[in-house]
Amino acid sequence: MIDKNRIDKVYRQLEKIGVEQMIISDPVAIFYMTGKWIFPGERFLGLLIKKGSEPVLFLNELFSFAEDCGAKKVYFKDTDFVINVIRPFIESEKILGVDKNLTANFLLAMIESNIAKNFCNASIAIDSARAIKDEAEREKMRISSNVNDMAMDEFKKLLRDGVTELEVAESMLGIYKKLGASRYSFDPIVAFGKNAADGHHMPDNTALKEGDGVLFDVGCVVNEYCSDMTRCFFWKKEPTAIQKEVYNLVRSANEEAEKMLRAGIKLQDIDKKARDIITEGGHGSEFTHRLGHFIGIEDHEFGDVSMANENLTQAGNVFSIEPGIYIPEVVGVRIEDLALITEDGCEILNNYSKEIEVLG
Amino acid sequence: MIDKNRIDKVYRQLEKIGVEQMIISDPVAIFYMTGKWIFPGERFLGLLIKKGSEPVLFLNELFSFAEDCGAKKVYFKDTDFVINVIRPFIESEKILGVDKNLTANFLLAMIESNIAKNFCNASIAIDSARAIKDEAEREKMRISSNVNDMAMDEFKKLLRDGVTELEVAESMLGIYKKLGASRYSFDPIVAFGKNAADGHHMPDNTALKEGDGVLFDVGCVVNEYCSDMTRCFFWKKEPTAIQKEVYNLVRSANEEAEKMLRAGIKLQDIDKKARDIITEGGHGSEFTHRLGHFIGIEDHEFGDVSMANENLTQAGNVFSIEPGIYIPEVVGVRIEDLALITEDGCEILNNYSKEIEVLG
Repeated sequence: MIDKNRIDKVYRQLEKIGVEQMIISDPVAIFYMTGKWIFPGERFLGLLIKKGSEPVLFLNELFSFAEDCGAKKVYFKDTDFVINVIRPFIESEKILGVDKNLTANFLLAMIESNIAKNFCNASIAIDSARAIKDEAEREKMRISSNVNDMAMDEFKKLLRDGVTELEVAESMLGIYKKLGASRYSFDPIVAFGKNAADGHHMPDNTALKEGDGVLFDVGCVVNEYCSDMTRCFFWKKEPTAIQKEVYNLVRSANEEAEKMLRAGIKLQDIDKKARDIITEGGHGSEFTHRLGHFIGIEDHEFGDVSMANENLTQAGNVFSIEPGIYIPEVVGVRIEDLALITEDGCEILNNYSKEIEVLG
Repeated sequence: MIDKNRIDKVYRQLEKIGVEQMIISDPVAIFYMTGKWIFPGERFLGLLIKKGSEPVLFLNELFSFAEDCGAKKVYFKDTDFVINVIRPFIESEKILGVDKNLTANFLLAMIESNIAKNFCNASIAIDSARAIKDEAEREKMRISSNVNDMAMDEFKKLLRDGVTELEVAESMLGIYKKLGASRYSFDPIVAFGKNAADGHHMPDNTALKEGDGVLFDVGCVVNEYCSDMTRCFFWKKEPTAIQKEVYNLVRSANEEAEKMLRAGIKLQDIDKKARDIITEGGHGSEFTHRLGHFIGIEDHEFGDVSMANENLTQAGNVFSIEPGIYIPEVVGVRIEDLALITEDGCEILNNYSKEIEVLG
C-alpha cells in the first residue's frame, strides 16, 4: 500500500525543486512508496505522483496483480505505444520529473511526443526521503544487522588451514538463510593475507595459511533491508608489528568517528575525523576511499560520508563507518559498522567485537 | 579488444538509420564490442564510436585497467562533470545516437548541455548486429547448450519422493559449475504437478509426489554465452490421458516448428506453425506466450519468434522454440530448444531426448 507518510515526504522534497508531477520508474523507489516489488525487465513501469491526485501505476498486463497497492492501476499490452497510455494523465504544460534510472528509450519517446513542457531528473526528492528512515525502517535495519552479527560468528567457524576464500564464500548464503535472511545485500568479500590489501579483491582459490589476516566484508537482506559489516581476524598467529599497528589505527579511526555521531553535524567532518587519525598515524595515503555510504533497501543508497559532502546528518540517516588501510602486498584492514543517527544521538547497529582476535 | 568485424557490422546498421556517432553505455554491448566486462554501477560508462575514428571509452578511474581494449581510454574522477569530459569528442552539429539503456540522469545532462544537435535511441544498430552470431559466438552457443544437456541428466537424479522444488533448484548451480559453467543464465524454474501450469511459478516448498509432472526450465552461462532448455518428465507413474495428450501436442508443435527452420523465412510463420498445431489439437487458448526469444550473451536478447514479428530469419540467429500448454490447476508442459539458423539450414543446439520419460 502507498505509505502516506513516505509519499508526503517525497511531495515536500518535490516542492523544494519546483516539480509538481513525477514519474517514478525505479523498482526500488516503487517498493519504497508502495511496499510492492515489480520487476518488469525491459518493459515500462511507472508510478505517477501528483500532489492532490491519486497516484497512478502504469504496468504491463503481464505483471498484473490483484491486491490494492494504493495507486490506480493502468495496464497496457506489449502492442500498445506506452507513451499514449501515459499521456492523458500528464499535465502537458508543466515540467515532468523523471527518475534518474529511467532509460533512454522511454525518455526519448516522451520528449519526442511532447508529453510535458520539459523534463528533469527529480530523483533527489525520493533519494532525500529514503535517506531518512522512519521507525519501521529503523527496526528492520536493526534486525538485519543483528542477523549479520550472528552470521559473523558462523563465518569464523568456516576457517581451517588450506580452506580457500571461494569455499568460505560459497557457504555464506546458506548460513544467512538459516538465520532468516533472504539473500546477500552484496557478494561477500573474503580476503586472506595480502589479498585484503586489494580493494577490488573477489574471493578466489587462495588458501588460508598460518599468519594470514582474514577480512570479511559481508551483509544480508532481512525484511528487504540491508546490513553491511567488515571485520578482520588473524589466523593461528599473533599479528605482526605492522598488522597490529594498522589494525589498531583503523579501529581507533572507526571508534572515534562513531563517538562523534549525532544529528546536525557535517558528513565531511566525520570523514575528516577518521582520516586525520589515520594520517597522523602515518597511513593517510593508504586510506583510499570515502569513510562511508548510506544504506537501506539497497546496499548503496544516495548519500555518503566523504570529504565532498557538506550536508548535515539528520535523524533517520543510516550509513557505514568503514575506515581502512591498504598496504599493497603487505596488509589490508577495514573495520565497518552501520550507524543510525537518532533524535538524541546515534545507535551503532553492529555489536560485533573489534578486539584483536587470533583464530584457529 | 575491439572486434573489427563486429564494429563494422554496427557501423553498417548505424548507416541505415542515418546516425554517424553513437555512445554505447550498456555493459553487455560494450562487452560485445571489446570483449571486456566493466560494471560501473551508478557511474557513467560510455564507448563512443564514429566511423573513421578510433573508438573512445569513457570510464571512471575507479575502473581503470591496463590492457589494450582497442579503444582510447579517457578516465574521469567522481568530482568531474562527466559531460564536460565527453563533449570534446562529440560532433555537436550532428545527431548523437545513445543506448536504449542510458539512464535519464546522464541523458538529461547531455541534452541540457547541448553536446549534440539531437539525440536518438540507436540501440537497434547493436541489437541487429548481435542478432547475427559470428562463428566464434556460434561455437560458444553450442558448448553452452551442450553443458545444459549434460546438466539435465544430473538434475533428474535430484528427484526423490518428498524433495521440494527449492531443494532441487538450490543444487543446480553446483552441478552447472562442476560441468564448467560460470553461472545461471536465469534463475532455474522447477515446477512439480500443477505448479507447471503457472507461467510465473518460482521454486517453492512444494514436495514431489507420485503422478506429478516435473518441469525443468534451465540454462547456464559458459564462456559468457547462454543456454536455455525446458524438459518435462513424469514421476513414478505413466502420464494420465490429459498429461499425455498435452505432452504429445507440445512435442509435435516443437518438432514441426524446428523442421521448417532455415534462413529467409518470417519469424511470425514459425510461431504460427507451432500455434496452429496446438490450436488444431484444441488447446490454442492455453498456449499463452510467444514461441521464442533470441538469446546470446544475455538470456533474452533483441528479437523474438512471435505473431507480431514480420522479420526474416538470418544465418547466425539463435532463438528458442518453446511451445507450451498450461491448463490451470491441472497440467503444464513446455518443451524448449535453442535453434541456430545456418547458411544451409539450422542446427538444434540441444540434443536432449523429448521421449515421454517416467522417472523414479
